[in-house]
Amino acid sequence: MTKLRYLAGCLLAFPLGALAAPALPASTAPAAPLTSYVDPMIGSINDGNVTVGPARPFGMIRPGPDYSRVANSGYVAAPEAPLYGFSQLHVSGTGGGAKYGNISVMPFSGPIEAIGHTALREREHAELGYYGVTLKGSGIHAELTAASKAAQYRFRFPRGAPMALELDAGRLLNQGTVPLQAEAQYLVGSEIEVVSATEVRGHSRARGGWNNGGPYTVYFYARFDQPIRAVRTWKSGKLDARARRQSDTGEDTGALLGFGAARGRPLQMKIAISFLSSAHARENLDAEAPGWRFDAMLGATRAAWNALLSRVELGAGATGAQRRMFYTGLYHSMLMPSDRTGENPLWHSGEPYYDDFYAIWDTYRSSHPLIMLIDPAREAAIVRALIDIQRHEGFLPDARSGNANGRTQGGSNADVIIADAYVKGLEGIDYEQALAAMLADADVVPGGNEEKEGRGGLADYNTLGYVSSRYVRAGTRTVEYSLDDFAIATVARGLGHTALAQRFARQAGNWKHLWRAVEDHGARGFIMPRRADGSWIDEIACSVPGAATRAYAPHDVDIGTCVCWWCGFLYEGSSWEYSLAVPHDVAGLIDAAGGPGPFRRRLDTFFDGGFYNVGNEPSFLTPNLYHWLGRPDLSSARVRAIVQRHYHDGPDGIPGNDDSGAMSSWLVFRMLGLYPNAGQPVYLITSPLVGESTLHLQQGSALHIVARGFGAGAPYIGAARLNGKPLARAWITHQELEGGGLLELDMVAAASGWGAGAPPPSMSP
Amino acid sequence: MTKLRYLAGCLLAFPLGALAAPALPASTAPAAPLTSYVDPMIGSINDGNVTVGPARPFGMIRPGPDYSRVANSGYVAAPEAPLYGFSQLHVSGTGGGAKYGNISVMPFSGPIEAIGHTALREREHAELGYYGVTLKGSGIHAELTAASKAAQYRFRFPRGAPMALELDAGRLLNQGTVPLQAEAQYLVGSEIEVVSATEVRGHSRARGGWNNGGPYTVYFYARFDQPIRAVRTWKSGKLDARARRQSDTGEDTGALLGFGAARGRPLQMKIAISFLSSAHARENLDAEAPGWRFDAMLGATRAAWNALLSRVELGAGATGAQRRMFYTGLYHSMLMPSDRTGENPLWHSGEPYYDDFYAIWDTYRSSHPLIMLIDPAREAAIVRALIDIQRHEGFLPDARSGNANGRTQGGSNADVIIADAYVKGLEGIDYEQALAAMLADADVVPGGNEEKEGRGGLADYNTLGYVSSRYVRAGTRTVEYSLDDFAIATVARGLGHTALAQRFARQAGNWKHLWRAVEDHGARGFIMPRRADGSWIDEIACSVPGAATRAYAPHDVDIGTCVCWWCGFLYEGSSWEYSLAVPHDVAGLIDAAGGPGPFRRRLDTFFDGGFYNVGNEPSFLTPNLYHWLGRPDLSSARVRAIVQRHYHDGPDGIPGNDDSGAMSSWLVFRMLGLYPNAGQPVYLITSPLVGESTLHLQQGSALHIVARGFGAGAPYIGAARLNGKPLARAWITHQELEGGGLLELDMVAAASGWGAGAPPPSMSP
Repeated sequence: MTKLRYLAGCLLAFPLGALAAPALPASTAPAAPLTSYVDPMIGSINDGNVTVGPARPFGMIRPGPDYSRVANSGYVAAPEAPLYGFSQLHVSGTGGGAKYGNISVMPFSGPIEAIGHTALREREHAELGYYGVTLKGSGIHAELTAASKAAQYRFRFPRGAPMALELDAGRLLNQGTVPLQAEAQYLVGSEIEVVSATEVRGHSRARGGWNNGGPYTVYFYARFDQPIRAVRTWKSGKLDARARRQSDTGEDTGALLGFGAARGRPLQMKIAISFLSSAHARENLDAEAPGWRFDAMLGATRAAWNALLSRVELGAGATGAQRRMFYTGLYHSMLMPSDRTGENPLWHSGEPYYDDFYAIWDTYRSSHPLIMLIDPAREAAIVRALIDIQRHEGFLPDARSGNANGRTQGGSNADVIIADAYVKGLEGIDYEQALAAMLADADVVPGGNEEKEGRGGLADYNTLGYVSSRYVRAGTRTVEYSLDDFAIATVARGLGHTALAQRFARQAGNWKHLWRAVEDHGARGFIMPRRADGSWIDEIACSVPGAATRAYAPHDVDIGTCVCWWCGFLYEGSSWEYSLAVPHDVAGLIDAAGGPGPFRRRLDTFFDGGFYNVGNEPSFLTPNLYHWLGRPDLSSARVRAIVQRHYHDGPDGIPGNDDSGAMSSWLVFRMLGLYPNAGQPVYLITSPLVGESTLHLQQGSALHIVARGFGAGAPYIGAARLNGKPLARAWITHQELEGGGLLELDMVAAASGWGAGAPPPSMSP
Repeated sequence: MTKLRYLAGCLLAFPLGALAAPALPASTAPAAPLTSYVDPMIGSINDGNVTVGPARPFGMIRPGPDYSRVANSGYVAAPEAPLYGFSQLHVSGTGGGAKYGNISVMPFSGPIEAIGHTALREREHAELGYYGVTLKGSGIHAELTAASKAAQYRFRFPRGAPMALELDAGRLLNQGTVPLQAEAQYLVGSEIEVVSATEVRGHSRARGGWNNGGPYTVYFYARFDQPIRAVRTWKSGKLDARARRQSDTGEDTGALLGFGAARGRPLQMKIAISFLSSAHARENLDAEAPGWRFDAMLGATRAAWNALLSRVELGAGATGAQRRMFYTGLYHSMLMPSDRTGENPLWHSGEPYYDDFYAIWDTYRSSHPLIMLIDPAREAAIVRALIDIQRHEGFLPDARSGNANGRTQGGSNADVIIADAYVKGLEGIDYEQALAAMLADADVVPGGNEEKEGRGGLADYNTLGYVSSRYVRAGTRTVEYSLDDFAIATVARGLGHTALAQRFARQAGNWKHLWRAVEDHGARGFIMPRRADGSWIDEIACSVPGAATRAYAPHDVDIGTCVCWWCGFLYEGSSWEYSLAVPHDVAGLIDAAGGPGPFRRRLDTFFDGGFYNVGNEPSFLTPNLYHWLGRPDLSSARVRAIVQRHYHDGPDGIPGNDDSGAMSSWLVFRMLGLYPNAGQPVYLITSPLVGESTLHLQQGSALHIVARGFGAGAPYIGAARLNGKPLARAWITHQELEGGGLLELDMVAAASGWGAGAPPPSMSP
C-alpha cells in the first residue's frame, strides 16, 4: 500500500488485468539439472577469491581446502601450494585480510607423531556441493560435501595404509605474527576433547581478520564411522600422549587421531558447527547428518540450490558457457550473508540472524536486489536481521563478520537495502523500526568507532553539508551519504513522515557541495576535497617518503600510492569514478556536469580513456548512465563490451574479488538485460546477453523475456512490448516485473532511437 | 627515577638514611585472627548492597544467597524474603540494575517434580569465607565457602529426608521483562548436562545489567559427593524426564537432581566457573577443590585474607567495634575488581586480566590508593589489565563488568589511577603505553558510545575548554576531565613529554570555564551550565510533566527530579558538591571562591547546611579542604563527626552503596588518620580514630602511627614527628610513608595551630 503511494508519484497506474494475456512459450525443462552448470572454480583465481568448497545457500558452514595460510578463501590454484587441511568456515570473494579458516582436518597416512602434515595435490575436482582431491604421496582421496551447519568428509586411503587425521582447533587463516596487526586474525583460545571412540568436540575462538572484529567462537562436534584407535592431543604445539582433552587456556590445541590400517572402505567424518556450544553443534549434527549418507547430504544440497537456480530459466539458445556463467553467478550471489538464525551468541530474540555482510558496500547495488527477486522471503529475513542488529548494537552494519560490525567502507549503505525492500513492497518488515535504524546512521556520531560502524565525519556532514578534509574518505563518504539520505527520504516519505522526508531529500543533494569546477581530460566538474572552511584543496596528504603532500587530480587513485589504504579522499577509486556515482540523481549530475553533450563526452572518455574499473562497485551502474541521455543503445554497447572482455566461464572468469557475489550478481542482471537501481523500484533495460529467459516470481507469476532476432548481428533493441503493449521507455518498474507476463525486445543491427524519451527517474533536488 | 623527578618539584629531598631509626614498639600479635573481625553483614542493609557470601581477595567466583530476584547483591535481610537459591557470581556494594546471579543451586527435600523451589530462613550466619543458613520447613542446613574460581557447598538434610537440588542455568538477577530495558539483564542462552552420576556441566550466557554490557558467558562444572539417583532437566520451563542434556538454543535450562534419602551425612557439592569453557571450569575445580575438604577451602580463604589484613595492625587499644569496622572495610576494599587472569575470552595476551571495575568513578579516590598500599603487586596487575583493555578495545574502562566496558559516569578516571601508580613509583608498568591509553581518553571522541566509554562531549571540551549544554552531565564531565587532564600532565611531564605536559596542565584548569559568579546560601561562584556560545543558562531541561524547563540553582540535585538519571547537568550531586571537587587545584579553587575567608565559610555551610552527601564519592576529599586553609584541625573535626554519625559495625554500618569498597576504603584511611589525594604522592593527616596502627609495607618497611594521648578528650593533633623529626605540615609524601618508621602525633584537647603552614600541593595553573 505504502509502496503504491510511492509509485504513484513516478508512473501511471498500469491496468494489467485489462490486458489479454499473451501466449507464453511452454517452459522448457533443461536437459541437465541447473546445478550442473555451477562451476565453483569460476572466480577461484585472478583474485576472484571465491570459496571452492561445498555450501548450501546462505549456509552457516562453508568447508573447503586451505592451500594457503593467508588466502581469503583458503584456496590457491598453484600446484606447488600444499594442502594444510580442510577448515570449516570460509567467506567467498573477499579481499583484504582473511577471516575464519577454523577447525581444520587433514588426513595423512602414518604414525601419529608429529603436527603439521601437508600434501600436494595430484588432481582435484569441484562441483556444486562437492570438492574432491587426491593427495600426492599418500594417495589419499578426500571428498567433502556440506549441509547448512554440518559437513561430511570421506577419506579413501590405499588399502593397508595407516589411516590418520590431524584435527587442528588452533589454526586460522591469516594469523597475526605481531600483536594487534590490522586485519590479522588472532587465536583467543581453543579446545579439543576426544569424547568417545568415535566423537570429538571442541571450539576455536578468534578475533580480528579483515573487519578487525571482536572475538567469535566456533564450536564443533565431529563423529567418525570407525573407532579412533590411537590419540595424541596437543596444546601450544606440544604433543601429549595421554590427555584426551585439552581445555581452553587461550592456546592452540588439536588432536592426532589414528584409525588403524585401511581395509578398503573409506574413513568417514561428519562435523557440525555452532556458535552457541559444542552440545548444540552435536544437535546440529544429529539434525543434518543423522546417518552416514554422504550422497544424501550432497543430494539435499543440490536440491536446495536447484530450487533457487530454477527461479530463472534460460532459453534453449543459451550456450553451455553462458549457462555456466549465469548459474554460477546466481550461485555466488547466494552464498552470503550466512544464515545464523538460532545461532546468535549475542542476544536472544525472535528475529532472524545473519552474519558475514562482507560488505554491504559491495552488495547493496546488485546482490540484494537479485536475492529480492529470487527469494524475497530470504531478503526479508536478511533485512529483519539487519534491523535487529541495529536495535541491539546501535548501528546497522556496513560490514559484519564473526558476529561483529567492523569497517564501514563508504556510506551507511544498509539504508539503501532497506529502501530497496520498502519500494519493492517486501513484506514482513517493520518499516517504522527500519526507519529508526536508518536514522541512527544519519544522526548518531560513531566517534572513535567510525571505521567500525555508522557514518564517519557525520559531525561535518550534518553541519557543513559535506565531509571536510578533516576526515579520511571524505569524498566517498559525502557522495554515498547523499545516496543513503535519498534512501531515508524515500522510506520516510512513504511512511508519511513529511518533515523527515524533506530533510533527507534536501541532504540527498549534498554531493554537490564537493562538486568543484575543475577540468580533467576534457570533463568539467568533479568531486574534490574541501576544507571545513569551504575552501578547496589542491593537494592531498601523502605519507610516501619525501613528500608531505601531493597534487591531487580527478584521475588520481590516492590509495596505496600516497596515503594508507582507508586514508585517502576516495575509497578504492578515482574522482572520475565517484563523480559519476550519484545513482539517485543522475539528472542533477548531468546538469552539474554541463548538460547532456558534455556528459555524453564525459561518459565516453570514462570508458574509452581507462577510467572505468570493472572490479569496482561504485561503477556498477555507470554503463547505464547513457539511459538518462536517451541513449540506452550506448548503455547496451558498453555492457556487452564489458562482459565480453572481462567475464567468462574459466577459473579467471571474474575480474577481481567477487565480493561475496557482488560481481556475480552484476553479471546475472547484465545477462538478463535488466539492471536495478538499488533503492528505486526500477530496472534499466539493456540488450540481453541470452536470447530468452524466464523469471519465476514469488507470487507464482513469471516474467518471460524474449529477445526476438537475438544474435551477434542484432545487438540493439529496436522496439519493446510488455504483454503486447509497446514499451517506449528503456526501463520497467518492479511492479511491472512482478506482474509478470511477456517482455518482448525486437533486436536490430543498429541503434534505433528506442528509449529516447522518458528517462529513468531522478530525484528532484 | 622519573618519580623522583616529579617529586623534586614539590618537596625537599628527605635524607631518611641519615636519621637514627627511632625505637619501634614490638608488633603485638592480635589475640584473635584478623579475619574474625570481618563481618560480611556490615553494609548488607541500608543500601550498602555488599555481598554477604564467601569470597577470596579479588576472587572470580563470589557465591551467595539470593533472597531477591532484583537486589544487587542478591541479599535482602527481611525475613519474609524467600531464598531462591545460591548463585555463583555477585558484585559487592553496587547500585542501579543488578548484574550476574548466574548458575543458581537450591536445595529442597521432596520429589523432583517442579521448578521454582524457595524457602524462608530460620537462621543465618556469615563470616569471612563462610555463609550458612537453615531453611524453614525442610530444615535443610546449607553452608558455602569459596576459593578463587571454585566454591564448595554442604547441605545437611534431616535424616531420611529426600535430598534434592535445583540447578538453574537460566536464572539471572534483574531479568528484563520487556525487550531492551536499560540496566536489565537478559539471558542469551544456557546449557546444562548431567555428565555422569556425580557431575554436571553447563553455562549461562547473559547480556545487559547495570553497565548495559554485551554478552558474557559463565561456564561451570559441578561435582557431588553422592551419586545422582534421579534427573529431570528442563528447557524454557518445560520439564523433561529423559534428557540428561539441554543444549544451548537461547533459552533457560536447568536440572532437578535427586540423591535419595539422607543417611546422616551431608550432601556436598563443589562447583567451579570459567569464562572460557566448562572443560576449563573442570580444571579450575580440580585445581582448587581436589578433595571434599570444605574446611580446607575455607581455611585457605581465611589465610589468603589474613595475609592482606595483617598488612595493617591496630594497636591494642582499638575496640572490637573499631576492629570490625576497620578489617571489614579492608575486606570490602579488596573484593573487586575480579581477577580473571587466564580467563579472558576476548583476547589472548600475556597481561593480567581484571573485570568488574564497578565503577572506577567510585574507586579511584580511595580504593585504588588503598590497594596500592596493601598489595602493590596487585595494583600493578590491575593497572596493566586496564592498559591491556585499552590496547585491545580502544578505551580504558570507567565501568566494566561481564567483559564489557559500559557507563562512563563522569570522567575518564582511570587516568587518575594510572597517575597515582606513576607518582607512587609502582613498578612493572609500561608507562609510555599507559600514557598512550590516557591519550585515547583525551583525544578520541567516543561518539554514540559516549555512555559506554571515553569522554562524552569531548568535541566541546577540546575546542571550547568545557562541555557545553549540548551534552548531558556537562558539569560533572568538565570538572572531572580537568582532574583527568592533570593526571595526564603528571605522567607526560614525568616521562619527559614536555609539550604534552604543558597542554594537559593547561587543560587541568578547564573547570574554571564553567565557574560562574552566582551566589547561593552565601557562597559565590559555582560550576554552572553554559551554552556552546559562551552564554550562561539559568534553567535546565525538564522532563517532568508540565514543565519544559526549570530554574537551576547550585543547591539543586537535578537527577531524578527533573530529568532522567544520567541526563542532568551534574551526575548524582549538586553544584555545591561539584564546585568543591577540584582536588588537583584546591589553591585555585580557593581563589575562585573569593579567597580563604569566603572559602572557609563556604566549607562550613557545606557541612552544616546539608549540602554534604556522605555517600557521594565527589565529596570524599571535601572534609580535608580545610587543610589548604592551614586548618587541618577543622578537617579532623569534620572527619571524626562524619564517621561517628554514619559508620558503625552493624548491618547498616555503611551509609549507602559501598560501591565495590569505595566507602569502606574511605573509612579505612579515615581511621588511620591518613587520606590520599589520588594522582598525587600525598597523604593528608587528620586525627586518627585509633590510637595506634602499623602499616607493613611491600619493601619490608613499616610505618607505625602512634597518637600519643589518644582519647575522647584529645581530638586534635598538637604536634607531629616523623622518625623523631618535627613534622610541621599536615601531610606526608608517599615516599615518606614507604620509608616507614614512626609517625608520632601528639593529641591535644583544643586546636593548636599545628599544620598551619605548608598546605598540601596544588597545581600552578
